[in-house]
Amino acid sequence: MTTLTIALDVMGGDFGPPITIPAAIAAIQQDPLLNIILCGDKSIIETTLSKHKQSNSPQLSIFHCSQVIEMDERPAFTLRNKTDSSMRKALELVKKGEAGACVSAGNTGALMTNAYYVLKTLPGIDRPALVSSLPTVTDKKVYLLDLGANVNCDSEILFQYAVMGSVMAEEVEGIKNPRVALLNVGEEEIKGNDRVKHAAQLLTDATNINFIGYIEGNDIFTDKADVVVTDGFVGNIALKACEGLGKLIAVEVKRISHQNLFTRIMARLALPLLKKIYSRVNPDQYNGASLIGLRGIVVKSHGNASIEAFQYAIREAVQEISRQVPSKIKDKIEITLS
Amino acid sequence: MTTLTIALDVMGGDFGPPITIPAAIAAIQQDPLLNIILCGDKSIIETTLSKHKQSNSPQLSIFHCSQVIEMDERPAFTLRNKTDSSMRKALELVKKGEAGACVSAGNTGALMTNAYYVLKTLPGIDRPALVSSLPTVTDKKVYLLDLGANVNCDSEILFQYAVMGSVMAEEVEGIKNPRVALLNVGEEEIKGNDRVKHAAQLLTDATNINFIGYIEGNDIFTDKADVVVTDGFVGNIALKACEGLGKLIAVEVKRISHQNLFTRIMARLALPLLKKIYSRVNPDQYNGASLIGLRGIVVKSHGNASIEAFQYAIREAVQEISRQVPSKIKDKIEITLS
Repeated sequence: MTTLTIALDVMGGDFGPPITIPAAIAAIQQDPLLNIILCGDKSIIETTLSKHKQSNSPQLSIFHCSQVIEMDERPAFTLRNKTDSSMRKALELVKKGEAGACVSAGNTGALMTNAYYVLKTLPGIDRPALVSSLPTVTDKKVYLLDLGANVNCDSEILFQYAVMGSVMAEEVEGIKNPRVALLNVGEEEIKGNDRVKHAAQLLTDATNINFIGYIEGNDIFTDKADVVVTDGFVGNIALKACEGLGKLIAVEVKRISHQNLFTRIMARLALPLLKKIYSRVNPDQYNGASLIGLRGIVVKSHGNASIEAFQYAIREAVQEISRQVPSKIKDKIEITLS
Repeated sequence: MTTLTIALDVMGGDFGPPITIPAAIAAIQQDPLLNIILCGDKSIIETTLSKHKQSNSPQLSIFHCSQVIEMDERPAFTLRNKTDSSMRKALELVKKGEAGACVSAGNTGALMTNAYYVLKTLPGIDRPALVSSLPTVTDKKVYLLDLGANVNCDSEILFQYAVMGSVMAEEVEGIKNPRVALLNVGEEEIKGNDRVKHAAQLLTDATNINFIGYIEGNDIFTDKADVVVTDGFVGNIALKACEGLGKLIAVEVKRISHQNLFTRIMARLALPLLKKIYSRVNPDQYNGASLIGLRGIVVKSHGNASIEAFQYAIREAVQEISRQVPSKIKDKIEITLS
């Protein structure tokens, strides 16, 4: 039995320590083999741990950092000026091998830029990708990438993303020979732009990728594919449009439920059901996007994650460490390109 | 009082005459100034009209066409080989000035290709765009374009789309000085790819467009903008991803409602409410996308539209004729480029 260590950016996110520390405590209580290094302001961390009666937990240690990366700071600015930030230090602990993964709910752009700078990409990978799993109409999940790490992807990069997504689905989700699809405006071979068409050719030629062709936006959620690949511009907008629709539905429920006494009673009765559905289908709830393709594991939690959602991000990191995702990606890329 | 004439592709769509003809009948009954030319197989049309006791309606005429464009036929094939199809003839009636608009639920790719070939674009417009209105959290709608007419848009074309969308919002929706936004992966100026950044510059320089900057995918539905502009690849995938999420929610409602007696009762009680919400937020229900930028009006209905939804597409066409949308686009482009 080996222990796993995670470096946690305690200060990141919309709320910081009040969310990240209780989540860390819950995570170590569930997993006696997990150690967490809490990166951030020492006095705040100590106070919070003491409040939770966890000052002496052998599974928790503190790494003091004097700076915090704000949610609205420019990535390039943070790279130059926030070298003692909780996010940067958490990434450096991964780089040094003192932690197996970094988990942060901080500024996404800063996390991508700092992670890329500190950890570097794996051999054969040009750019990292942000990937997350989403619900489908069956019990299975689907991996969608890139969600915004790279807005200028050529077909070679889309190909690398397909390989990386395939490894994620196989190792983290346990799917044998995952079905990989390219997101396109139609399923026919003639559809799409040149970049997508060329990526499809590269994937058709690769013998160790189960490439099933193109799928359209409406089929992301129909369990036609285990991995859906697109560039960071399209992936980010598609995911956020779905989040926006989820919020619109929530607003609409509230609006309709106030229309009259009947709808008010109906809404009151139906609310638990609606909440259950909403929590299952709202992409916002699928916390823990991973930045993959780097020489280390980085999990990005939503900025406004709850304690429970942040725990989900920690669990995601644990899973990726134990399945050695980066080295599996490295191996698969080597075989694919050889 | 002037009459308006619409050329209807009777044979298009998943169902054809059983949907399109009753919708046409309902539309003329609601609007005594509306004439509809039914393009398609004469004997099928006559039989259907007779069944509905409308064989002698002065508002309906028949234009016999010997061919039908199938839903899976390639656009280029239809252009060469389906010159006597109901879709092609309906477009030609618009070209000749015998109809003010063409309405079709047929093959989208074929409609775009044939419309572009038959009608040509307006001066100053390089490519037509597919545009539709979507719901927002308020009572207002938002126009999203391009939804897939053009998957390779440079910044000039994005700029033209912004002008066209602005005219649609102003003329069809009656919004004074509509707020126009570019869809991007972030709201900050530094975000996005070069194409989007350059389009933003062109729009900032244009004095007669109320350009409000970038918005992200989740803000499509928040009434931040009246017009949201993106290329056909992104727009198509974002819209279809939302449709997919809508379907996922419908599946989830069914699944959860069958879990146990309590959820079954809840679901039964909540069903009318859920249906109401679903019909308001499901982008699929917003029937009647317009192909704009052409020297004529073309409205595309969903292939699987109901009679009611197809009527909505006819109403959309009537509105565009009476507001003279193509000539307004021509004027606005002229002023903008001068």
